[in-house]
Amino acid sequence: MAKQLSGAGLRGQVAGKTALSTVGKSGSGLTYRGYDIKDLADQCQFEEVAYLILKGQLPTQHELAQYKTQLKQQRGLPQALKEVLERIPKDAHPMDVLRTGCSMLGNLETEHAFTEQQAVTDRMLACFPSIICYWYRFSHDGVRIEVETDDDSIGAHFLHLLHGKKPSALHEQVMHVSLILYAEHEFNASTFTARVCASTLSDMHSCITGAIGSLRGPLHGGANEAAMELIEQFSSPEDAEQKMLEKLARKEKIMGFGHAIYADSDPRNEIIKQWSEKLSEEAGDDLLYAVSERCESVMWREKKLFCNADFFHASAYNFMGIPTKLFTPIFVMSRLTGWAAHVMEQRADNRIIRPSAEYTGEAPRSVPAIEQR
Amino acid sequence: MAKQLSGAGLRGQVAGKTALSTVGKSGSGLTYRGYDIKDLADQCQFEEVAYLILKGQLPTQHELAQYKTQLKQQRGLPQALKEVLERIPKDAHPMDVLRTGCSMLGNLETEHAFTEQQAVTDRMLACFPSIICYWYRFSHDGVRIEVETDDDSIGAHFLHLLHGKKPSALHEQVMHVSLILYAEHEFNASTFTARVCASTLSDMHSCITGAIGSLRGPLHGGANEAAMELIEQFSSPEDAEQKMLEKLARKEKIMGFGHAIYADSDPRNEIIKQWSEKLSEEAGDDLLYAVSERCESVMWREKKLFCNADFFHASAYNFMGIPTKLFTPIFVMSRLTGWAAHVMEQRADNRIIRPSAEYTGEAPRSVPAIEQR
Ligand SMILES: CC(C)(COP(=O)(O)OP(=O)(O)OC[C@H]1O[C@@H](n2cnc3c(N)ncnc32)[C@H](O)[C@@H]1OP(=O)(O)O)[C@@H](O)C(=O)NCCC(=O)NCCS
Ligand SMILES: CC(C)(COP(=O)(O)OP(=O)(O)OC[C@H]1O[C@@H](n2cnc3c(N)ncnc32)[C@H](O)[C@@H]1OP(=O)(O)O)[C@@H](O)C(=O)NCCC(=O)NCCS
Repeated sequence: MAKQLSGAGLRGQVAGKTALSTVGKSGSGLTYRGYDIKDLADQCQFEEVAYLILKGQLPTQHELAQYKTQLKQQRGLPQALKEVLERIPKDAHPMDVLRTGCSMLGNLETEHAFTEQQAVTDRMLACFPSIICYWYRFSHDGVRIEVETDDDSIGAHFLHLLHGKKPSALHEQVMHVSLILYAEHEFNASTFTARVCASTLSDMHSCITGAIGSLRGPLHGGANEAAMELIEQFSSPEDAEQKMLEKLARKEKIMGFGHAIYADSDPRNEIIKQWSEKLSEEAGDDLLYAVSERCESVMWREKKLFCNADFFHASAYNFMGIPTKLFTPIFVMSRLTGWAAHVMEQRADNRIIRPSAEYTGEAPRSVPAIEQR
Repeated sequence: MAKQLSGAGLRGQVAGKTALSTVGKSGSGLTYRGYDIKDLADQCQFEEVAYLILKGQLPTQHELAQYKTQLKQQRGLPQALKEVLERIPKDAHPMDVLRTGCSMLGNLETEHAFTEQQAVTDRMLACFPSIICYWYRFSHDGVRIEVETDDDSIGAHFLHLLHGKKPSALHEQVMHVSLILYAEHEFNASTFTARVCASTLSDMHSCITGAIGSLRGPLHGGANEAAMELIEQFSSPEDAEQKMLEKLARKEKIMGFGHAIYADSDPRNEIIKQWSEKLSEEAGDDLLYAVSERCESVMWREKKLFCNADFFHASAYNFMGIPTKLFTPIFVMSRLTGWAAHVMEQRADNRIIRPSAEYTGEAPRSVPAIEQR
């Protein structure tokens, strides 16, 4: 299931240890602390999985109820943070907004000691949906929304703030699944960013701020937005097939396909694809899902490239009325759990991450006086 | 001159290529694009070295004058950014302020295409001193300072904003030297953070914001502040000797000593040490410099640990009246050049940086129903 890895980008080089997840190991596609992602997506709420990833075991019913209550109580935003968000223009990139919001939070609620790491993480889990929706609704609709709702879950809280009404049971469930699928993925680029930062013994907000910046890139989290921009160009499956072939002939990179580690499928795809289909039926869609499926089969037939976690997330989010530019911020609300757990792991057994480089530059030379250059 | 490297933290593993600098290669301690750091610190202004690192060659007199003029013109801050800075409390960590300021700038002046990379870098070089001093003077002295001065250099601009008057020629020169010494250092943790972020094809502000967060850590840039807190505890060289021995007996880590790559000296130390001595004489100091020297000899005698770039920076900055908590932000104003140049290098020949991990966690297991946990 995993590729033969080598070459640039540290591909296949072991950069540290983790007990959090396995990616592409034989027999199982993706596990969090030993549990198969399929079982977790099937049976759990996101908050259960966040608890698992952060604290090491699945919560009991009582522990889960307590944890959810605790998170619910921390949805509010400090006034100074709201005032910062109000100063970010409407056309800003929402990932830049979240990066700035997280960084500002670090000024107002600084992690002063590593004993606070779980508390500052829970706070971020609880308030990131508030940050992104407060800015979105203020800049786009001119309203200062109340961010403290009593929704049962993080996903429902987000959809409620975004749409101004409580989501349906189906939509809340899809949010659980989506947040579970995105929660953790070993040493991907954003997580690795967080670990490098943690290895200097910096604070949690610095680590998460850095990870958000990395996830923003189109080769990483930004791919779900790019996938949406792709599929909405097509007027039918036939149109999709033709234009995809043209893109491949032009050697364009197709976002939402391929993976650094998985060789022939991404286990998250099968799961989100099913939910996308359900949402498509619910929404009475007769285009987007069919187009997405056609893209999938063309890419496999032509290139043996498969959908990664991002591809069917695009249509799924779209069916729930989520604006494309908020796709990657949802990824953040979820992956935050993996990032923070990796930071905690790095801190528990740390050595500063400081690799070497191959030098390809000028040989030693002497500095000419400025008049002689 | 370089250590035998192995073990955790990717020590000694090649994570990519660079033409920007060599660290600890035989025959020369530290070179930027082939030029020895000693020669650069001796003969150049910081802006010359920034030009070298970013554009590949030393500027002619005309090019340098043009570059400095260009930087001078970009010292102003957008109103929205000032308003954000005014909302950051006085007791915030200045590195968190700079991280937030940089991130906010990314919302207001987003890098929309890589063709803008040099321009957004120059803008940051020009305005980072404004960001940190605007916040510092507002939060500490309650004044809204004018940040657009006509000082000749970045270092002078910073000291001018901080102290409200133009610096002496000696202080301006020390700032040149200090900013040159800190400008670039191959794949250190903050630079590597910037490269990992760049490898997802994220924007420049994300890369630099992430790097600031990494530099904040006490094992990295934060060491110059920690060194200051150390030396100001001592009432005499004898007192320093006794207390250092006690610390070593307690196996405490002494900040400002040791290095991930250099084996027996840091070439930057010799240079900043000389300037610290000059400043000590100018200031009529009869304690701090002598204490610092004693710490150096005790550490070498007892542990064969040598001063890195940070140790004598502490006393040097102190003699120039710079508050301790602004030490690491000065490091940022300088290292920004190296970070940005590495981002450009990564972009020019990119593969996403995605290493592997050694799994140390639970074996595959099935999810128990919540009532059965
Ligand atoms: C995920 C990704 C960054 C992995 O990068 P990687 O490990 O360097 O990829 P590989 O080494 O497997 O690439 C092998 C070849 O397949 C090509 N390829 C990989 N993904 C491709 C895609 N989505 N579209 C077209 N071609 C692709 C590569 O360009 C490469 O071709 P080359 O050898 O001619 O350069 C890459 O597949 C990609 O860019 N995908 C699109 C972005 C995306 O969806 N990211 C989200 C990941 S969850
Ligand atoms: C720079 C630094 C992070 C390099 O880390 P590294 O590559 O992991 O260090 P090494 O492998 O050379 O460490 C070897 C031994 O010396 C010890 N050591 C290194 N620096 C030390 C210091 N400043 N004080 C006391 N002991 C030190 C280490 O603890 C280690 O001991 P151990 O084997 O018993 O654990 C480390 O020297 C350090 O923490 N220095 C203080 C922070 C600092 O000044 N940072 C700025 C760097 S420019």
